[in-house]
Amino acid sequence: MNNTPTAIPDCLLNPRSVAIIGASDEPTRIGGRPISSMLAKGYAGRIMPVNPNRSTVQGLPAYASVADLPEVPDVAIIAVPAQHALQAVKALAERGTKAAILFTAGFAEVSEEGAAMQAEMVAIARRGGMRLLGPNTLGMVNMHNGFVGSFSTFSSLGVSRPGRVGIVSQSGAYGSHLVSSAMEAGVYPSSIVMTGNEADLNVSDIVRLFAADPMTDVIAVYAEGISDGPGLVDALKAAHAAGKPVVMMKVGRSEVGGAAARSHTASIAGDDAVVSAVLDELGVVRVRTTEEMVDILRLASRRVFPADNTLGVVTISGGAGVIISDAAEDLGIPMPEMPAAAQARMLEMLPICAPRNPVDVTAQFINDAALVTPFTEAMMGEGGYGTLLAFFSYAASYHTVADTLLQQLADVRKRYPDRLYVMVGRGDPTVLARYEEAGFTVFGDPSRAVAAIAAMGRFGRALAGKSTAPAPQVPAVTLPSATPTEAEAKALLAEAGIPSAPERACADEDAAVRAAREIGFPLVLKILSPDILHKSEIGGVLLNVNSEGAVREGFALLLERARKAVPDARIEGMLVAKQLVGGVECIMGINRDPVFGPIAMFGLGGVFVEILKDVVFHRCPFGPDVAEEMIRSIKGAPLLLGARGRPVTDIPALARTLSQLSAFAVAAGPRLQSIDLNPVLAMPEGQGAYAVDAVIEVGE
Amino acid sequence: MNNTPTAIPDCLLNPRSVAIIGASDEPTRIGGRPISSMLAKGYAGRIMPVNPNRSTVQGLPAYASVADLPEVPDVAIIAVPAQHALQAVKALAERGTKAAILFTAGFAEVSEEGAAMQAEMVAIARRGGMRLLGPNTLGMVNMHNGFVGSFSTFSSLGVSRPGRVGIVSQSGAYGSHLVSSAMEAGVYPSSIVMTGNEADLNVSDIVRLFAADPMTDVIAVYAEGISDGPGLVDALKAAHAAGKPVVMMKVGRSEVGGAAARSHTASIAGDDAVVSAVLDELGVVRVRTTEEMVDILRLASRRVFPADNTLGVVTISGGAGVIISDAAEDLGIPMPEMPAAAQARMLEMLPICAPRNPVDVTAQFINDAALVTPFTEAMMGEGGYGTLLAFFSYAASYHTVADTLLQQLADVRKRYPDRLYVMVGRGDPTVLARYEEAGFTVFGDPSRAVAAIAAMGRFGRALAGKSTAPAPQVPAVTLPSATPTEAEAKALLAEAGIPSAPERACADEDAAVRAAREIGFPLVLKILSPDILHKSEIGGVLLNVNSEGAVREGFALLLERARKAVPDARIEGMLVAKQLVGGVECIMGINRDPVFGPIAMFGLGGVFVEILKDVVFHRCPFGPDVAEEMIRSIKGAPLLLGARGRPVTDIPALARTLSQLSAFAVAAGPRLQSIDLNPVLAMPEGQGAYAVDAVIEVGE
Repeated sequence: MNNTPTAIPDCLLNPRSVAIIGASDEPTRIGGRPISSMLAKGYAGRIMPVNPNRSTVQGLPAYASVADLPEVPDVAIIAVPAQHALQAVKALAERGTKAAILFTAGFAEVSEEGAAMQAEMVAIARRGGMRLLGPNTLGMVNMHNGFVGSFSTFSSLGVSRPGRVGIVSQSGAYGSHLVSSAMEAGVYPSSIVMTGNEADLNVSDIVRLFAADPMTDVIAVYAEGISDGPGLVDALKAAHAAGKPVVMMKVGRSEVGGAAARSHTASIAGDDAVVSAVLDELGVVRVRTTEEMVDILRLASRRVFPADNTLGVVTISGGAGVIISDAAEDLGIPMPEMPAAAQARMLEMLPICAPRNPVDVTAQFINDAALVTPFTEAMMGEGGYGTLLAFFSYAASYHTVADTLLQQLADVRKRYPDRLYVMVGRGDPTVLARYEEAGFTVFGDPSRAVAAIAAMGRFGRALAGKSTAPAPQVPAVTLPSATPTEAEAKALLAEAGIPSAPERACADEDAAVRAAREIGFPLVLKILSPDILHKSEIGGVLLNVNSEGAVREGFALLLERARKAVPDARIEGMLVAKQLVGGVECIMGINRDPVFGPIAMFGLGGVFVEILKDVVFHRCPFGPDVAEEMIRSIKGAPLLLGARGRPVTDIPALARTLSQLSAFAVAAGPRLQSIDLNPVLAMPEGQGAYAVDAVIEVGE
Repeated sequence: MNNTPTAIPDCLLNPRSVAIIGASDEPTRIGGRPISSMLAKGYAGRIMPVNPNRSTVQGLPAYASVADLPEVPDVAIIAVPAQHALQAVKALAERGTKAAILFTAGFAEVSEEGAAMQAEMVAIARRGGMRLLGPNTLGMVNMHNGFVGSFSTFSSLGVSRPGRVGIVSQSGAYGSHLVSSAMEAGVYPSSIVMTGNEADLNVSDIVRLFAADPMTDVIAVYAEGISDGPGLVDALKAAHAAGKPVVMMKVGRSEVGGAAARSHTASIAGDDAVVSAVLDELGVVRVRTTEEMVDILRLASRRVFPADNTLGVVTISGGAGVIISDAAEDLGIPMPEMPAAAQARMLEMLPICAPRNPVDVTAQFINDAALVTPFTEAMMGEGGYGTLLAFFSYAASYHTVADTLLQQLADVRKRYPDRLYVMVGRGDPTVLARYEEAGFTVFGDPSRAVAAIAAMGRFGRALAGKSTAPAPQVPAVTLPSATPTEAEAKALLAEAGIPSAPERACADEDAAVRAAREIGFPLVLKILSPDILHKSEIGGVLLNVNSEGAVREGFALLLERARKAVPDARIEGMLVAKQLVGGVECIMGINRDPVFGPIAMFGLGGVFVEILKDVVFHRCPFGPDVAEEMIRSIKGAPLLLGARGRPVTDIPALARTLSQLSAFAVAAGPRLQSIDLNPVLAMPEGQGAYAVDAVIEVGE
């Protein structure tokens, strides 16, 4: 018995034959619509209806049972009630069917009993090497070959031109909304897949299918919960390797939203900030709204992703130039000025223009179309912008100027074909369609245009593949059987290159005094016990210990406090540590995310973490350059970088420590629950970074 | 000679007669288009073309000069070159014309010389009691009476149905873009006014006109710079008093944007955060994009502004429910749960529904339209939501269900007419138009719907008029002739009810020791000199002074430091002050904004102000409840409110101090440049708030 799923069969998108279990002669019924749709779309494979009561279905020969099928279907569609579905899965798996699509509802989404039945069905399918889409799914459609494994009307939404965007959605209803919104905006799918209950195949599997699908250039994902982190990471890496950008809408950010997501899916919702960090790492653009998704898909269909995405703006309205500049600054798109010589030439040609960038050509541009070529040519050639955004509003569709404008813009685009061309235009849709054909993606709203342009730059940078340093190698980690003491934790971390302040574990007062002489004052004394994790809560830490006498007094005092607070604690003595002065308090941590595994966290100490939640996350492991990016990305970073006359801290040491910690977390294996280094002191430049406290939590 | 402008003449929107100076027989020329448009739109007033070379213009009798006009026109349109415009203004003003619209360009927007000519023109007009719109304006249109004082094609943009939204824009080109975007979305203007150079009439004046215009319900403003703060405040108050919501797009937020705005307008751009604070105070919704503007105008046209804007969502897609919940949380719209009894009843009617809120009715809703009434009735009646948002996506336009759905939704709306009804629908536009007619505003995108709903709630709260406490009365303030010392500053503030830590100004050591005995230790010593404003910069402050000996030593030390740092400083002695322990450091300040006058600022001290710019602004004066809202609105507020075991601070005292400061700033008059209270210590509950340092800057 083999319970590992087989590889996702390519034939799911391109089956040579399809069986429909529960086939209906009525073209609009659930068991009839796939057949009528495939017939209408000219699907070239063999369609085999299964219906015990009819000899033909919609004019095709029908078969009484799976056993009677004249050949093993590549894909089967199951459109029978739950109690019969299990049987159908069994019969199909036994005959060697590669994949089945289960429309049938009534499983994990309704009850515990349904969940059990669903699990049994998956086990049966796996034994036969068959993969399942669903149950409780609207199914899937391949727009290119006419394969319709769906009973949804989205297969007949009016427009059905095949396109190059692969769309996968966990929600049938919202997926359909997305598909109709996309088509209305002129974005056409290659294939559409709804994953339903994801008993077996999930969004990640479908992303991997799209990554390999020659008809798909861009991938759109709608997800409510991610249950298989590594699977998603692999799938996104496959898409990246294939040069296909991924846009993802992952909902359930808010408290109410999160509750709603849990109430209607059976997946574990990962922590939202972690999801964002992982998607960001893998070059995915995460969107919040359907419109943003559709805008980005539309522009991405041009397949131009400028890694150096500078923005040049030519506008007939100064006001629009300001709006666009505001939006670009918000989104971090640089808008460098035109070179001085080009500005001077522009002013000669059109004295009332503002030639800096935005290049405000005023309405005069419309009256004197001969200006369009020299201006835009200068912007692309001398300005060297990655993207040209032209704001013409409804003037773009004036019949008197559209021809000339279009011709001249198209000429410039031919000379610089590796750039992105975007137009804000309004008015006659037939005229605007001609700009689209000439390679100018037309938006009605300048702010939306800028948001889509920003996404293209992010894809460009991701696809260009910034070469980051590899994660460091750390020696094998053997975690103790139970949660270690602070000293043990620091020793473990030290082996992995994570330094703490100099310190000694001392069993008695004399040892403590000897340690004090070695380390030098000021010192910190801390109680040492495997039963006391959070020392400061019981007053188990003394700062500013400045003499040998104070060491002895402190030793006695802490001993007394510990015995009072935790009477049966095993006390191993005291930790005598160097007290570091002049550092900035940071926090580093590791948390095992149930979906994505160990996640590193970095933040500044004090109010930054407590009140402002100013922290950054990253999947482990990662190299020191990624760590440095993380450190520089927090809002409070200026405090580490010398703001307002503060000393600059040792950022390289801090980044090294964070990166080593990420490697340690992976090396420690799945028993590692969490690590808290709080604080880590970032000392002034060249003086290192030291963990002052360390807590490692170890699980079973 | 009178240089005060006369009141804005109502006839600007409704002239009984219009003269066109530079009238053209050619209907599409600048001087011809207003005439041809008015003739086409059936303007009922008298049109009087002025042209010295023709006896008729476009079939109307023409007049050789202004002097020859048979009656004094209410409004004149000037469409002659700059050198003739001045003369025309003079002739019109002398005859008693009430207002002139100047299309003519070539004034302040091009040169110093043009600016001088513009100023002269305004002076001439004012002497005759005539108001000017422009110069360099596209002009204006009243869609209700056919008055077209514009040469723009926006007067003939295809659709020209009159509506209820007054649109005013500083930019002709962007204003036209806004108008065409609005009309395409079904938002029709009452009047459109472009203000051009704003030599005389500005956006504020037009807002005031719209506030009084019976054909205008909602006001839309596009502005690049505000030069007349009090004028804008008055106009917005007038709109508020008339119950008309105002939506404003004020651009130039970014550095690049700001530069672009300055390069093409002649107005002073106020600090952006101050503008936002003022608009917020006056109930204006500020938008960032044209689409957001149009969405809000569209929904506002329903004239339903729920002050208690709770959101009830009914959806056929769980995913859409999540998206909507996320968006609502981001925008602060509460989504209370349905009452338990209603939830139980819903579950009985439709066992697979999720009845909490969002109420997920699944696709079943579409199949069983009889459910629509009981569900939505329960939501409005028992849920009591201010807004119902129904997500039906393209199912809304299914011909099989649209009739029933529409009928049932319309019935519920009739029973609860004071609520806001929004639908997310896609598909057949003619079907969607029927929902619009039934009172459901249809959006294609759920996130945009939620943003527009949030704006209605803000209008609702603003129009309901939260009754805030009046600003406190403070005694008359007489500022000294020059910037006062710290002690003088604190004395001035103390009279206005702004307490400082107990302190005495002491001319010599003996006086200082006497003061120390009175106040008690620990103490702070500070140098006292009108020539040393920022004491800590020269080491002029000593903390932790704990004995009489230390008072004497400190006195001598500070004296020496001051003499070294500022040799010719007049030194008046020392300030001996109580050192407050255990307070939270805050910053309060006043800054005279060139546009809006004295603006109060509040923030937390240290990194919050320095690194995070976590501050809040408000126009002065205001009462303690507004001050408390300001204090509670900053990100770091939890530090004052007892976060993480900190003591709760004396918020009422802090709010009182801030409010008194705002009243002081107004009472001090225009010579007050700025006040810095840094820090103000917010002491634990019941122990007050004290200014520890105070700097008042006084101007000429």
